Amino acid sequence: MDGCPPRVPISLDEIQFELDRRRPGQSKIVTQRKESDTVEILSGVLDGMTLGTPILMMVRNEDQRSRDYDEIQHKYRPSHADFAYDQKYGIRAWSGGGRSSARETIGRVAAGALAKKVLAEFGVEIVGFVEKVHHLRAEVDTDTVTMADVESNIVRCPDPAMAERMLLHIEEIRKQGNSVGGVVGCVARGVPAGWGEPVFDKLEADLAKALLSLPACKGFEVGGGFGMTDLTGFEANDEFEADESKNVTTRSNNSGGIQGGISNGMPILVHAAFKPTATIMMEQHTVTTEHENTTLQGRGRHDPCVLPRAVPMVEAMVALVLVDHALRQKALTL
Amino acid sequence: MDGCPPRVPISLDEIQFELDRRRPGQSKIVTQRKESDTVEILSGVLDGMTLGTPILMMVRNEDQRSRDYDEIQHKYRPSHADFAYDQKYGIRAWSGGGRSSARETIGRVAAGALAKKVLAEFGVEIVGFVEKVHHLRAEVDTDTVTMADVESNIVRCPDPAMAERMLLHIEEIRKQGNSVGGVVGCVARGVPAGWGEPVFDKLEADLAKALLSLPACKGFEVGGGFGMTDLTGFEANDEFEADESKNVTTRSNNSGGIQGGISNGMPILVHAAFKPTATIMMEQHTVTTEHENTTLQGRGRHDPCVLPRAVPMVEAMVALVLVDHALRQKALTL
Amino acid sequence: MDGCPPRVPISLDEIQFELDRRRPGQSKIVTQRKESDTVEILSGVLDGMTLGTPILMMVRNEDQRSRDYDEIQHKYRPSHADFAYDQKYGIRAWSGGGRSSARETIGRVAAGALAKKVLAEFGVEIVGFVEKVHHLRAEVDTDTVTMADVESNIVRCPDPAMAERMLLHIEEIRKQGNSVGGVVGCVARGVPAGWGEPVFDKLEADLAKALLSLPACKGFEVGGGFGMTDLTGFEANDEFEADESKNVTTRSNNSGGIQGGISNGMPILVHAAFKPTATIMMEQHTVTTEHENTTLQGRGRHDPCVLPRAVPMVEAMVALVLVDHALRQKALTL
Amino acid sequence: MDGCPPRVPISLDEIQFELDRRRPGQSKIVTQRKESDTVEILSGVLDGMTLGTPILMMVRNEDQRSRDYDEIQHKYRPSHADFAYDQKYGIRAWSGGGRSSARETIGRVAAGALAKKVLAEFGVEIVGFVEKVHHLRAEVDTDTVTMADVESNIVRCPDPAMAERMLLHIEEIRKQGNSVGGVVGCVARGVPAGWGEPVFDKLEADLAKALLSLPACKGFEVGGGFGMTDLTGFEANDEFEADESKNVTTRSNNSGGIQGGISNGMPILVHAAFKPTATIMMEQHTVTTEHENTTLQGRGRHDPCVLPRAVPMVEAMVALVLVDHALRQKALTL
Repeated sequence: MDGCPPRVPISLDEIQFELDRRRPGQSKIVTQRKESDTVEILSGVLDGMTLGTPILMMVRNEDQRSRDYDEIQHKYRPSHADFAYDQKYGIRAWSGGGRSSARETIGRVAAGALAKKVLAEFGVEIVGFVEKVHHLRAEVDTDTVTMADVESNIVRCPDPAMAERMLLHIEEIRKQGNSVGGVVGCVARGVPAGWGEPVFDKLEADLAKALLSLPACKGFEVGGGFGMTDLTGFEANDEFEADESKNVTTRSNNSGGIQGGISNGMPILVHAAFKPTATIMMEQHTVTTEHENTTLQGRGRHDPCVLPRAVPMVEAMVALVLVDHALRQKALTL
Repeated sequence: MDGCPPRVPISLDEIQFELDRRRPGQSKIVTQRKESDTVEILSGVLDGMTLGTPILMMVRNEDQRSRDYDEIQHKYRPSHADFAYDQKYGIRAWSGGGRSSARETIGRVAAGALAKKVLAEFGVEIVGFVEKVHHLRAEVDTDTVTMADVESNIVRCPDPAMAERMLLHIEEIRKQGNSVGGVVGCVARGVPAGWGEPVFDKLEADLAKALLSLPACKGFEVGGGFGMTDLTGFEANDEFEADESKNVTTRSNNSGGIQGGISNGMPILVHAAFKPTATIMMEQHTVTTEHENTTLQGRGRHDPCVLPRAVPMVEAMVALVLVDHALRQKALTL
Repeated sequence: MDGCPPRVPISLDEIQFELDRRRPGQSKIVTQRKESDTVEILSGVLDGMTLGTPILMMVRNEDQRSRDYDEIQHKYRPSHADFAYDQKYGIRAWSGGGRSSARETIGRVAAGALAKKVLAEFGVEIVGFVEKVHHLRAEVDTDTVTMADVESNIVRCPDPAMAERMLLHIEEIRKQGNSVGGVVGCVARGVPAGWGEPVFDKLEADLAKALLSLPACKGFEVGGGFGMTDLTGFEANDEFEADESKNVTTRSNNSGGIQGGISNGMPILVHAAFKPTATIMMEQHTVTTEHENTTLQGRGRHDPCVLPRAVPMVEAMVALVLVDHALRQKALTL
Repeated sequence: MDGCPPRVPISLDEIQFELDRRRPGQSKIVTQRKESDTVEILSGVLDGMTLGTPILMMVRNEDQRSRDYDEIQHKYRPSHADFAYDQKYGIRAWSGGGRSSARETIGRVAAGALAKKVLAEFGVEIVGFVEKVHHLRAEVDTDTVTMADVESNIVRCPDPAMAERMLLHIEEIRKQGNSVGGVVGCVARGVPAGWGEPVFDKLEADLAKALLSLPACKGFEVGGGFGMTDLTGFEANDEFEADESKNVTTRSNNSGGIQGGISNGMPILVHAAFKPTATIMMEQHTVTTEHENTTLQGRGRHDPCVLPRAVPMVEAMVALVLVDHALRQKALTL
């Protein structure tokens, strides 16, 4: 009906596909915890199509083996949120890591799967990828990289040679009981010019918040990012040019597709730094909940490198920000 | 009265001091536009003390010489927001740069001056500083750096030797009609453990949004930031230790004072990358508003390096985020 | 721990008690649909105490007999939301009434049960009651009425003689296949002075929104409400008086405990008008989804008077508004 | 440009016209304070057309004669916000009534003038009117009433005979130093079906909040309001009917144009009760700021009946709510 929300096709399989990209145990280089992460849709979808009303999805926790968490009931894990939670709330549901567990990203990925479907109606395509693991950096052409390229290996790095090196390095790190971090890149192609707000809710500002809200994310760049500080204005500026059809593009894209907070029609490029997983199998100094000095060594299963699982999380957050701004821009036009 | 908001002392001088740190024309290495940026308080303060009700401050524009902007009425400035604005709004108030002018940061700095006063009541102190200009990087001890150190030179870099080199470099760049960017660091000392929210409104997420909302900001780091991707978990983790009074600190501060989105009592450290000023005095390719190829060369006054003026902006945004989270944490306690 | 959120005791029984007050089939004068409305707590509570983190409760739908809804798939029920939904969304999940079903109030009542527990920590007590059914109006002393008084009869009217007349009248209306509405009153005693905001988020404004958001609510009054328009200022004003302990009260309470949007320490009094249930067993004119004129007669079970079930809904919404403003006021104090 | 916000014509005269309807001293039956309330537009409008960016309007206070307020520095005015403010903030800017002064409604009326211009682009027309003063109730046909009818007399009651009686009554009340309240009605014609949200942000809920946020407003009704509690469902239901063009209307409009929170295409009807002005020239009991019993008698100028000045306020708030929901509905459609 004219003036009504579009009905968007939604399939459980598509959502489950994204959840499986985030799921523990999906490959030998991520944590071996067994979680099936099965999603259920409770509202907002009828006959495989959205109704325009809120969509509730639910994934129930399972395999929360409290015995793995016994020691951390009484000791604060270094670089985990345990201590900060106790300071904030005076209590912490230590079993399974509680609210600070990265399991909450399941909801983000599920929501992101829907956001991608809506964005597809606008012609927007989002591709995330691992571009750096520890000191190993890949070459990625963000104009052409596809999800198929990314999914072609378990590292989710679309540079096959580097992916192989990353895989071997992660294996090595895992054997040491240590961990490494890295950088996830993400490109959104097909975003029309005009999305984003001019002051506080700049498109890059909302993207930065969205990515920094992911567990273990410590840095964000849009376009040239920190690298732009090594350039002069003459080098860094993106010169405009028009083709014969008067379509305007820029010769470079250091702006990452956003100028003054607003998309300019070029691909949107962001990068997110993830620190090494805090849980390692090596002994470290820490304190007890009674504030006595002690040591702690991780046990059981750990994630030597969260990067492959972070790719769908980054894509999801980018998609959620873009779909919000798509709606905001729609609201502006009569 | 018990249970009432504290009255915070506010002086126009303190607000004007911050505005003057941001003001054009304050030194030879920033833009020479003449703007006095005089602030007026219209509500919320009585006899130099806050009333607990909203505070309206106003700074009127002046010296908006439209003739400097004539050419840009018809040509899009590279890496400026002109083109994106026209795409979004279908119109743009080109005179003075309109809404996309960085003059809007006056409001942020004025509000930040108030936020700093409130944070002082909590024992929080915020110091921002220039840590990198183009390829020149300073050494700064964030445990001890003071605003006096920062204000001791016009670059606002508390490493005096490096400040001198930066100054000379900016002068050189200015003569070329070119521009450079850099990195502003900021430390907040005295933030108690427990500020920040666990999922979407993580303290680092709100800081990232706040800083990326500043004009020309292209990157954000908390604590070790992108550098943490070069470390292993064993190297990167911040081990806890307790002193004899059972005060808990961490041996390193790669977390930047925030774990799981919540402050842990250590200094909060952030870094913001600013691209080189887009306006330069050198000729560049661009297109007209009719989407014809052309060239454009800046005229008149330009800012060869925005970094010295960005310091109070960064401090202001950090202060505004922290004071919001201070209130949120207060709301949690009966 | 000092500065941390209080842990509030939460029992499933207390929440279920409130849900049972809202539940269909609870007495002979409400709809006879059979729904057990069993609540499950999925997060935020440990060992019967709140953790300070979000609390997720879930009540699964049951007994959604689609055959009762066959006819309304093709015909718009008068004074229901069917037509407006189709106009807004272009589609409507007609089975069970879909999103416009008053079953959504389960969530409000469950959340309200928690809010009441938090408010009890502030010394606030909330009592809602039926004060009018059709033309029958009860006498209620809002300084003394208790929940026990309200629960002493199935009408939830604390005026026993009038409750009996209301009950007989509702029975009569039900036999006719017709319906009636009425007014629910609600008092919150023990609210300290100082809750509420001075302009847009006045305490009475948020209460009005909260109550008008309930299905079938068509009117709202605070204190003297529309009746105050029959008085002069001299009659309507609430004169202050102080007792020997310098406690200040007002001689009358036409303000309903709120002045200028802010609580003044007197009992907060609100009234909400509920229209007669739209679903009746009598034939009425309407149109089909193809916009052809037709008639429709309700079948099966209907609610001759929603008032007894509206009491816990009103209490819940009042509690939710008050607890929000309690937190806002806490945030103001250092 | 396609996909861009429409440019809406804005004239200072139109805004000033609305402000003059609210202004003190506009006629002999309202307060005789002299305030010119001259509006200035500081941003967002160029050449008499909106830019799509925020519009800042400013009206500076004048004629704030502090000597009128000397006594109330030490005594709480009955049914004013003085006492509640002191309890909330621990201080109060007593001069001119401070933040609790109804002068803040200037901003609402100015913003409402803009909202009306935007709504006109959607074909929406809003007419408010005085329908009751004290015990005097007018007859108003909301299908046909025009602003010209309303503005034809200084009471703003479109029932000329009753307007004359109201005027005489207000004059009489003023001579007594007393005050009266009443009811303002408001109709919005031309609102398309589909505006409003299904649960918490129901259109009637947002209207209720908006009107109850006005100073002195104590009650709200949509459509039949409290009067619907005197009807049965058979009497109260709005039967649908279709004309030959398949346009659907309802035979009655007890729903006030809103069903289930969503507009149904019929005129939106609301009513707001305003209590008698609290400031009267008669002696009343009260307490001092030291909580000692005393008396207080108003001096100088007072508003014997705020109703004529409340009409533009009510229209403004209705317009602001509708324009928000217009944008929300626009956002839903691709």
